[in-house]
Amino acid sequence: MLYSKLIGKTKKQFPKDEESLNAQLLIKAGFIQKEMAGVYIFLPLGLRVLNKIINIVKEEMNSIGGQEILLSALQNPEVWKKSGRWNDEILDVWFKTQLKNGSEIGLGTTHEEPLANLLSERIQSYKDLPLYIYQFQTKFRNETRARSGLIRTREFIMKDLYSFNKTNEELDKFYEKAKEAYIKIFERIGIGDKTFLTFAGGGSFSKYSHEFQTVCTAGEDTIYLDRNKKIAINKEVYFDEVIKDLGLKKEELEEVNAVEVGNIFKQGTRFSEPLGLKFTDKNGVEKPVVMGAYGIAPSRSMATVVETNHDDKGIIWPKSISPYQAHLVALNINANSVYKKLNSTGVEVLFDDRENVTAGEKLSDADLIGIPNRLIASKNTGDKVELKSRNSDEKKILSVEELLNFLS
Amino acid sequence: MLYSKLIGKTKKQFPKDEESLNAQLLIKAGFIQKEMAGVYIFLPLGLRVLNKIINIVKEEMNSIGGQEILLSALQNPEVWKKSGRWNDEILDVWFKTQLKNGSEIGLGTTHEEPLANLLSERIQSYKDLPLYIYQFQTKFRNETRARSGLIRTREFIMKDLYSFNKTNEELDKFYEKAKEAYIKIFERIGIGDKTFLTFAGGGSFSKYSHEFQTVCTAGEDTIYLDRNKKIAINKEVYFDEVIKDLGLKKEELEEVNAVEVGNIFKQGTRFSEPLGLKFTDKNGVEKPVVMGAYGIAPSRSMATVVETNHDDKGIIWPKSISPYQAHLVALNINANSVYKKLNSTGVEVLFDDRENVTAGEKLSDADLIGIPNRLIASKNTGDKVELKSRNSDEKKILSVEELLNFLS
Repeated sequence: MLYSKLIGKTKKQFPKDEESLNAQLLIKAGFIQKEMAGVYIFLPLGLRVLNKIINIVKEEMNSIGGQEILLSALQNPEVWKKSGRWNDEILDVWFKTQLKNGSEIGLGTTHEEPLANLLSERIQSYKDLPLYIYQFQTKFRNETRARSGLIRTREFIMKDLYSFNKTNEELDKFYEKAKEAYIKIFERIGIGDKTFLTFAGGGSFSKYSHEFQTVCTAGEDTIYLDRNKKIAINKEVYFDEVIKDLGLKKEELEEVNAVEVGNIFKQGTRFSEPLGLKFTDKNGVEKPVVMGAYGIAPSRSMATVVETNHDDKGIIWPKSISPYQAHLVALNINANSVYKKLNSTGVEVLFDDRENVTAGEKLSDADLIGIPNRLIASKNTGDKVELKSRNSDEKKILSVEELLNFLS
Repeated sequence: MLYSKLIGKTKKQFPKDEESLNAQLLIKAGFIQKEMAGVYIFLPLGLRVLNKIINIVKEEMNSIGGQEILLSALQNPEVWKKSGRWNDEILDVWFKTQLKNGSEIGLGTTHEEPLANLLSERIQSYKDLPLYIYQFQTKFRNETRARSGLIRTREFIMKDLYSFNKTNEELDKFYEKAKEAYIKIFERIGIGDKTFLTFAGGGSFSKYSHEFQTVCTAGEDTIYLDRNKKIAINKEVYFDEVIKDLGLKKEELEEVNAVEVGNIFKQGTRFSEPLGLKFTDKNGVEKPVVMGAYGIAPSRSMATVVETNHDDKGIIWPKSISPYQAHLVALNINANSVYKKLNSTGVEVLFDDRENVTAGEKLSDADLIGIPNRLIASKNTGDKVELKSRNSDEKKILSVEELLNFLS
């Protein structure tokens, strides 16, 4: 991609109406733009990062047997009345609107009810189970406050997977597999070392649910972390009995802020019973399906990566989710041939081909954007290029062939 | 994919609450499910078709210089008040809702205003133009009636590209390229021979806009078609002067129903002027940007393919958008080794591995689902398979290697 043509160039200033660092950096670097409070537009660079995270999540969901579908944003109240969650006092983030005939509909904040409803006519026997179904769906949540940039927004794409099992034991086994998949996802997107399995409230069906919390000053949550055991307790269940139950010691726990980048939850029959989602077991006995829910918001993950991977010059993207593999900067020479060679061998390269822009401006833009490999083509490099990593000062002069070997 | 595990198996009956053939077939065959009137869920088979169409559209938009972004569904009224389209009498398909603080917001039905608004601070000079920007965005339209299945829904993904040019001449050139890209898209998804460039009303800026209309009994539009010249006139501008202007003859025009699968529209300065989207030309003169809009709804294309490609047994998918390349049916034998071999060589195969289902049922399900290549593994075929196309009766016995050659 030619930077001169790109929609979403860097800005000179940080936006004045953003408190959060992730929004400030992502807006200044040209990844996103604010539409209104809690609603953001993804510009080409931002959409590329978002899609890379989505693809990683998709691969891991497929690897544990997930089937992808696409439910709707518009929600039928009848389905939600069955679980009681149509009530704004029980689910307090609804956006509601009306059809032309005046009947009320909602915008989906989560999708247990419509999915349980969908399956209620498709699951009959134990032979139809287990099932693991996920989607990437735009959620709408009428948050009272939205001030953490992409961490808490009113509209965002969420991956929500739901599990449908015959028994608690079968759910438990899948739950552990999902936990492993989540750990892999956060490792792959570059926040594995800062993300900890955190015990949170479990509701009526199970003792605990689990969150994946990334330690980060911008986090809205408070957790108590045992860094050696790599587990934490959410403030909401930070009680002596829980500490003891988990085999932890109060004096070894550290209070830190964290962002909840994922959560997994055993829901049992909370939704299957009211929605009539039943199956007949081997003995001909009718039973409610045992459910679980597993959520990740790719845009929140993206924000968390920015919050935890930056310096005073800008963002430092992990290779796996960087918008481009390499950022080629031409300094006072024409570097089209290098660009074409990289492009034609399948390297994803952003090429700063701007004329009438100073070297200093180009290099500080490259640092702000944060692509891991910066390449400089100049009179000094001849037909070679200078390679520098975003997070080190070491520079190497490489031929294009050597560079291709390095990148592949 | 193992059919025994798939969510979204065929149904025995057509749904009783659907008038349209596309919804009847897609629901019976397990591609979609109705959530409420005008709102559909995409099951795995349906989502695969939808994504294949989306990828084709994306390739063609990239090939004419499109940059992909993602705008928001939630809309800020202030932006729409500038163009006058916040008014429900001017744009009559709004869904509107409220934030917690009581302020009104809308759900995007189209995106000229927010995109012109976004660019108004990013475009300054003629050097920033032209720009071609597109997205795949969920649109919400509060249609009074929704009864044509996926042809007219209240929520659907739309590809909308917008062009931003310096002059009418520059717009005209791009408009012709977009027209060619649209023709390619409809050819690639298998409705090229039935889809005709159709002249429709142009509004205040240009004489005509252009629709791509697919001849089809289910079509909501009436067009007057010259089959030799391969162009048509929409009923809304079917006047003697238009017929003459286009060099057509009334007696050679055929009145047919058609589905509008795409439309392209020169908008001129209709939106750029009120939204303040201006640039400074080479002579330092400030001018409004010249805009165009180019829409395709992949789900409507999918419905149109079904309406025009089926027989009394079911759907007949074109190869390019079939959910799977091959449908392997095991008749009273275990065909796992064939399935694994196909899978491991990258063939997309749906494998009907169900036990306790009759051969007749499996074969009629395969016809209903409509994957182009049906493979049968049975005692008769030994370690080979029988290949039959969905749209012919000819059968061939092939080894797996011969089959792989055929499919690749």
